[in-house]
Amino acid sequence: MLPEQVRIYEVGPRDGLQNEATPISTTDKVAFIGLLRAAGLRDIEATSFVSPKQIPQLADADELMRHLTAERDPQMRYPVLVPNERGLHRAIAAGATALAVFTAASDEFTKRNIGMTTDESLAAFAPVLRRATEMGWWRRAYVSTAFGCPFTGHVDVAKVVDVALRLDDLGVDEICIGDTIGVGVPSQVHDITANLVGAGIPITNIAYHFHDTRGTALANVLAGLEDGITCFDASTGGTGGCPYAPGAAGNLATEDLVYLLDGLGIAHGVDLAGVIKAARFAAAALNKPLTSKVGQAGGWDSATGARLLPQA
Amino acid sequence: MLPEQVRIYEVGPRDGLQNEATPISTTDKVAFIGLLRAAGLRDIEATSFVSPKQIPQLADADELMRHLTAERDPQMRYPVLVPNERGLHRAIAAGATALAVFTAASDEFTKRNIGMTTDESLAAFAPVLRRATEMGWWRRAYVSTAFGCPFTGHVDVAKVVDVALRLDDLGVDEICIGDTIGVGVPSQVHDITANLVGAGIPITNIAYHFHDTRGTALANVLAGLEDGITCFDASTGGTGGCPYAPGAAGNLATEDLVYLLDGLGIAHGVDLAGVIKAARFAAAALNKPLTSKVGQAGGWDSATGARLLPQA
Repeated sequence: MLPEQVRIYEVGPRDGLQNEATPISTTDKVAFIGLLRAAGLRDIEATSFVSPKQIPQLADADELMRHLTAERDPQMRYPVLVPNERGLHRAIAAGATALAVFTAASDEFTKRNIGMTTDESLAAFAPVLRRATEMGWWRRAYVSTAFGCPFTGHVDVAKVVDVALRLDDLGVDEICIGDTIGVGVPSQVHDITANLVGAGIPITNIAYHFHDTRGTALANVLAGLEDGITCFDASTGGTGGCPYAPGAAGNLATEDLVYLLDGLGIAHGVDLAGVIKAARFAAAALNKPLTSKVGQAGGWDSATGARLLPQA
Repeated sequence: MLPEQVRIYEVGPRDGLQNEATPISTTDKVAFIGLLRAAGLRDIEATSFVSPKQIPQLADADELMRHLTAERDPQMRYPVLVPNERGLHRAIAAGATALAVFTAASDEFTKRNIGMTTDESLAAFAPVLRRATEMGWWRRAYVSTAFGCPFTGHVDVAKVVDVALRLDDLGVDEICIGDTIGVGVPSQVHDITANLVGAGIPITNIAYHFHDTRGTALANVLAGLEDGITCFDASTGGTGGCPYAPGAAGNLATEDLVYLLDGLGIAHGVDLAGVIKAARFAAAALNKPLTSKVGQAGGWDSATGARLLPQA
């Protein structure tokens, strides 16, 4: 039995855009996020409070968050990536109420990505998560490279579980297991889920983040659904990848995920045509063609056989 | 439990090329098929004995088959598509020993595709399959548009079962269920398999043919594997689609299928690097970029984390 309902966690504005070279204005980001919200997405990772020098694309995090928090929409959650206490102070000042922290199951990846070992990153997050907990924020933690590391290859599932348990101890609402370079297959999903649940992480606190680099993203989603997972990440338009991970390209596109879930009869509250509209907006802003499968092919009307694409 | 071993049925030279506009020489086809054979593929649908006027790309079927049958390799099977008795006579003359016939679960699709109703197509195949049986040929039958029709929408699984049973009565070794326009989802795969097996078709006689039009092909393969299916179609380079099915593009790429099966530890006898080489050859011959996921990203070396791509 697959779950009756899942959450789609949209990562396009943060994980998607941070890896795109074409600069996007704050106005366009606000408009993009507005389209995602209009499509029914309720969890939208909006930006990152890393150093503006490190990721110039997200240097407007403070201004963007002020726009979003001005909405005061109780249905919406706009988590922001926070790398350290300095980032937390900026996030607080900008009105954030939900955050995400980012580490990896591979030490080598963590070192090259954020300049710390996994242990050091966990030590750095401890005060951040403590403060977030005191403030009553929603807290998510990423365990990236859980399916394989671009620098060291195979990653032991025991290492994934170890990092997840330590994040759980620090206090998080959701642990997101990432296939950062898109090498994962469904048997790994089953293995990781079983080990996490066996170690005491509640299934409802586990999310998966897949890349479609090798075409396996939706097969991995299916495996996750079979495990009872109820949260999946996706990026509208399939934007993003990882600049520190050679060969990594292509977050799972939100429109591809929505098509699969609709077909399986699993509720998620997101409108496919609305997502395709947002994907087209992002592609136009980035001045590149829309490459997601469903963004190009459209949905499908089983009453008539026609392709379903929003009006241009 | 997934099957320990499966067959990959290569459709690139026939289904792939027939939908490509750039003419390919017989010499290039022989070379392409040679690369597929070198990669370990043993079932290669080579061409079609339809009218040369209808599909000019495959007008060299007679000459191509004479090249392939001259190999006299007992490991190889080169089925050819045969639409009628006239086509069968040509196939016999060219030395074929395996054939495929093509009909659909949707009458409207069959009418527009081959100018007959499904009933009429079955009547036309009866003498062809009878003669092939007498000659001891290997016989396959396609039931296309089983997951949905581009002209009439939803297709009832009862119609799929009805057509499959009638083909089974005519005498075939394998029935291939096709998602011609790439709208299928895993729950449909489970439903179709269960109904076919329930009607008495042995699981080992069922194959699936998926299109990755909406990114669901490998999720559908996973569902098929879970059902115990042991034969999947794929097209090296992801070439092909269907000229009669608006919006249909992208057969599942053989390299994407091989990557998934390798990751799942399922034996199939095909070498990924060899398939990527053949895919590059096909893309160059067609003068277009290679768009398959694994063709671009490559395999992955879990010992080092490196991408695996054959030397250019």
